[in-house]
Amino acid sequence: MNHPALDLIRQRVSANQFDPTHTLDDATIRELIFYAGEAPSCYNLQNWRFIAVRSAARKRALMALSYDQEKVVDAAVTVIVCGVLEPERGIRAAMQPFHDDGHIDREVLDQWVEETTAAYRDKPGKQRDEAIRSASLAAMNLMFAAQAMGLASGPMGGFDAAGVSADFGLAATEIPVMLVSVGRAAPGNWPRKRRLAVDQVLSIV
Amino acid sequence: MNHPALDLIRQRVSANQFDPTHTLDDATIRELIFYAGEAPSCYNLQNWRFIAVRSAARKRALMALSYDQEKVVDAAVTVIVCGVLEPERGIRAAMQPFHDDGHIDREVLDQWVEETTAAYRDKPGKQRDEAIRSASLAAMNLMFAAQAMGLASGPMGGFDAAGVSADFGLAATEIPVMLVSVGRAAPGNWPRKRRLAVDQVLSIV
Repeated sequence: MNHPALDLIRQRVSANQFDPTHTLDDATIRELIFYAGEAPSCYNLQNWRFIAVRSAARKRALMALSYDQEKVVDAAVTVIVCGVLEPERGIRAAMQPFHDDGHIDREVLDQWVEETTAAYRDKPGKQRDEAIRSASLAAMNLMFAAQAMGLASGPMGGFDAAGVSADFGLAATEIPVMLVSVGRAAPGNWPRKRRLAVDQVLSIV
Repeated sequence: MNHPALDLIRQRVSANQFDPTHTLDDATIRELIFYAGEAPSCYNLQNWRFIAVRSAARKRALMALSYDQEKVVDAAVTVIVCGVLEPERGIRAAMQPFHDDGHIDREVLDQWVEETTAAYRDKPGKQRDEAIRSASLAAMNLMFAAQAMGLASGPMGGFDAAGVSADFGLAATEIPVMLVSVGRAAPGNWPRKRRLAVDQVLSIV
């Protein structure tokens, strides 16, 4: 099967070397986050938040909290992709537009909120799993959109989560799930890392 | 910015109604999983596994374990996307090809294994977070590839995880993170659910 989107999936490589002279304007950052937020989430929770770290000072602070990975300062922007706990608190606001557009009536909206509340309230483990899942889906969309926009991306899972939460003023209900640097690739990046063969990871039953 | 991949992100909708007469052959399922596995993962761990549930009997069993969601049986295939714990056990096999292709020498490979082991061994919470993160990144790629291949997808987070693990023979180190139904959409699906405005989820610092 051929499609330009499939080419992008095959071609995307996690960059470590970024051009430090390259910058991104507000409009481009907003476009990236728009696409990140188009990811699906359970109940359409959208239990995510994005902090785009672009200023030199904040990038330096973030680099210090991520084992001094230079891509954090070299890339035009590094996005802190957060997942949100207690997602049932946000579900009515998240689904109100679907009601207002006339797709569901008030009763269905109320039931939606009730089911979501039953699913997550007082279940911290499930909330954490969901925060990581939703934020990761959004992060993949973000990297994919960056690629389609001609930009390189470098995801990071290794950083001081407590330090990031404190220094960047995350709410108690927000977990930093991944950092994603986005910018223009510089020379010196490794090639794509080969993946396991499909047969090593797939069973059909 | 315009790109066919960005159109796909905007257009993709989580389907609930699938055409039960539509089927997928092995080659197409393998292609979907190939693209899922092209997702990035920390250290290139590839700590995921995919069970493509296609037979009528196994789809019925899976439906019973997922609150009787009919899409599980109606869609051509429903993929159990698993994340893998103790990922340090698989890292040498995962990175050996990168060494064999001449990109890193033996010393770097050994160091890679050592660092990964230090990062995850005996850290069950971190292993779980990583399993969910990697599997979710792969699931997003899977849904995206499906869309590019003209197929609809329907992700599910609500199912009996312990039941799925038992009934589908998951290893003790495998967590079912999401179910993703893939097939041909039938009439009657809801339109896309509107998302929060970018300003509601983004800060630029």
